[in-house]
Amino acid sequence: MNQEKLREFEPIFYPQSIAVVGASRDEQKIGTRYLKALLTAGFKGKLFPINPKAREIMGLKTFPNINSVPDPVEYVIATIPRELIANLLDDCIQKKVRVIQMFTAGFSETGEEGQRLEKEIIRRARQGGIRVIGPNCIGVYCPASKMPGPWQLGKPGAVAFVSQSGGHTGKLIDEGIAREIRFSKVVSFGNGSDLDSVDYLEYLGADPETKIIGAYLEGVKDGGRFFRLIRELSKSKPVVIWKGGRTEIGARAAASHTGSLAGQNIIWTAALKQVGAIKVGGLEELADTLLAFQFLPKIEDNNVALIGGLVDGAGGPSVAGSDACADVGLNIPPFTEEIREKLKGLIPLEGSITQNPLDLSRIGENLGILSQVMELVDDDPQTSLVILNEDVNLLLRNMSTSALRYLTNFLINFKKAATKPLVIVSPPGLSYVQRAEEGKRLLEAEIPVYPSFERATKAIMNVIKYWRNRSQIL
Amino acid sequence: MNQEKLREFEPIFYPQSIAVVGASRDEQKIGTRYLKALLTAGFKGKLFPINPKAREIMGLKTFPNINSVPDPVEYVIATIPRELIANLLDDCIQKKVRVIQMFTAGFSETGEEGQRLEKEIIRRARQGGIRVIGPNCIGVYCPASKMPGPWQLGKPGAVAFVSQSGGHTGKLIDEGIAREIRFSKVVSFGNGSDLDSVDYLEYLGADPETKIIGAYLEGVKDGGRFFRLIRELSKSKPVVIWKGGRTEIGARAAASHTGSLAGQNIIWTAALKQVGAIKVGGLEELADTLLAFQFLPKIEDNNVALIGGLVDGAGGPSVAGSDACADVGLNIPPFTEEIREKLKGLIPLEGSITQNPLDLSRIGENLGILSQVMELVDDDPQTSLVILNEDVNLLLRNMSTSALRYLTNFLINFKKAATKPLVIVSPPGLSYVQRAEEGKRLLEAEIPVYPSFERATKAIMNVIKYWRNRSQIL
Repeated sequence: MNQEKLREFEPIFYPQSIAVVGASRDEQKIGTRYLKALLTAGFKGKLFPINPKAREIMGLKTFPNINSVPDPVEYVIATIPRELIANLLDDCIQKKVRVIQMFTAGFSETGEEGQRLEKEIIRRARQGGIRVIGPNCIGVYCPASKMPGPWQLGKPGAVAFVSQSGGHTGKLIDEGIAREIRFSKVVSFGNGSDLDSVDYLEYLGADPETKIIGAYLEGVKDGGRFFRLIRELSKSKPVVIWKGGRTEIGARAAASHTGSLAGQNIIWTAALKQVGAIKVGGLEELADTLLAFQFLPKIEDNNVALIGGLVDGAGGPSVAGSDACADVGLNIPPFTEEIREKLKGLIPLEGSITQNPLDLSRIGENLGILSQVMELVDDDPQTSLVILNEDVNLLLRNMSTSALRYLTNFLINFKKAATKPLVIVSPPGLSYVQRAEEGKRLLEAEIPVYPSFERATKAIMNVIKYWRNRSQIL
Repeated sequence: MNQEKLREFEPIFYPQSIAVVGASRDEQKIGTRYLKALLTAGFKGKLFPINPKAREIMGLKTFPNINSVPDPVEYVIATIPRELIANLLDDCIQKKVRVIQMFTAGFSETGEEGQRLEKEIIRRARQGGIRVIGPNCIGVYCPASKMPGPWQLGKPGAVAFVSQSGGHTGKLIDEGIAREIRFSKVVSFGNGSDLDSVDYLEYLGADPETKIIGAYLEGVKDGGRFFRLIRELSKSKPVVIWKGGRTEIGARAAASHTGSLAGQNIIWTAALKQVGAIKVGGLEELADTLLAFQFLPKIEDNNVALIGGLVDGAGGPSVAGSDACADVGLNIPPFTEEIREKLKGLIPLEGSITQNPLDLSRIGENLGILSQVMELVDDDPQTSLVILNEDVNLLLRNMSTSALRYLTNFLINFKKAATKPLVIVSPPGLSYVQRAEEGKRLLEAEIPVYPSFERATKAIMNVIKYWRNRSQIL
């Protein structure tokens, strides 16, 4: 069964050759952007620009139509107007193309005429043995096979994402590159007329490269099949779902966007919970949660240690971090008496907090003391994760950029040796370049980094909820 | 009454001379940082470093104690250990100092002994006619009088902020400089033993420079007086309150931080609502809401126009923006038939949405068409505000940096001519430098900019809530 699924999707995520229909000499055209992205990413298979008016595009021999390509064509990217799609489909059937990804829009999302056209196209494609991605979609992004879609290619990894929105997909990939969320497969499938969310999700369940699954959905066609599948998938992989159009106004927008009937939020919420999926409310929580699943181990205990800051001014953040923890159900148990006594020997009394949360006053500047403190926190038997606030802007008022770099190195080394996972909060501010640089280094060391306590704690709790639920159902 | 209040606080926010007790030749010492910040900001009054071991600090003649200063000293910044505070106070009384701001910590927030010490110091200060800011606080930040605290000085403006956390204060000032939130007066008052939140708030109510008031509070001493005051202030100025320690765990942290008894969240929530204050949940919402009050006019109507994006990929954001609007109670009424017809003549059918929300497909690249579209949106009689998604990262995939700059210029000019206020959502991504630059230009043009629909809509709704409530109570 799994082997069959993997074989079925082989031409979708690992095609040997791609034709880009609608590429041109105009660099701003979407077809050209697909082609350029494939060339830039170093796609290993054959590439065929299709354009009746050009002989060569970006140094590649260009063909007037699919049938004039001498080699086999496995995968077609269609960016031409909808009026030309029927003819293209005929050509593709003749050429024994396996997959068409239709960027082309103007189908069921625009009304009755579009619905009719879409149905007809899918019927003919199925007859001809061609799978359709879309229409009205951006298609596949797969770092392992160097298929970037029209985007920049990031690192390969274990996170998959299926989406009814190309915009959100692009944004998540963008966030992924910025925040080290590394993808196995991403597919923006738009109207999903042939291959739909459940098809992709079934494949991702079988895919050995995929360990975590995210989805942006505005609606599903067969709710029963969908929820049964999610329950099955959740037994082995976390499934994180962002439901678009969860309000009445949002649902109206979704109908115009992908022609989806959005369905009632209350039903979705209950059903997703029941099948063990993690429901998120927007792109931020989606990215935050995928990042947490990617870098955090299995974790079921909700007791955490909180370090409000490394230099002066950590009292307020300690309170805010505590509120954020409590809001989502994370607990901050006071350190054991033994550990508190040892901490008191290291941290000055004034302007500090030696319970949990920990406000280190200014000792963050002394890495010798900081390492002893962090080891004590790591030793505390009552917590299973450490949340630390590294406010780059605040730190740079107290130390040089190179001292900040040492501090980040220290945190990276601590993470490597520690028994507990470390999550870092790095709030925005004026020093956005240094913040981005230090944040990137932490992320490259596989430490999840968040811009606020609220976002960090939500993501952590989503991970805990998943593992608790998984223990229950198994 | 008002004149009296203003006179009373004159030495606090507009002192003629400041002595920094504890400044030294060590640049990392907090006293030295206060002194350096005052010099950098160009404080106009006289500055006296006080240090028995130095003759000169940063080019300024240094005195061994307050009494050896030949000129009058109006305002003292104390950064010395708590054991030395009693003697300093004696000196200050003798010198007829008006105000002491005590950075010094280790008082009531540390337990019984600290509480006793704090009480005794405040008693003596009152006897001697000296007002105390703190202890355990960072003190005053006032751009108009070039008092930066230990921070960088931003532009003067109409937003005041009072806070029990120095950390949050620094962070908000930092956000303010980055996001053009311009302050009249800010005071971090820590334990607030002498002058407390209500004292500062009363002053800010009277202060003609202050139009909007923000507060971070962990507790208040006299709830009745506090809530009566907020009700009075809210009649003429929005009061935005972030309550720290609103959860049990957070309250415990607050007790260690400022010795505050945090009080029950449910009571706070109800009471703040009743007196017309706007309650926010954290630093992000606080800054977002102050920014919205600063740049948005009086607005009571909750019907908005939403532009999901300016180039491809705006379908998903249109849905997400709609959900975010609906979540907070903003409505997105469809455009009138007349306007829709005109829009259809300008925007291609495929891949666009011509209702409200509006998905412009790729026409954002054509400023001629965009200006006609934006004028139509501005003309629609059913909405009173426009929310527009300018995704810099996405735009830079479609246009050059200079074209993006033209687009931002266009938005700035549109805002100047438009009848409706404009709010821009600028989500983060890889192009963080360009995003910061374009965002800064929009903010300088007094257009509120937010990183997500969620944050924008929350802030907008907070403004609407305030004006609706004010209409009701007046």
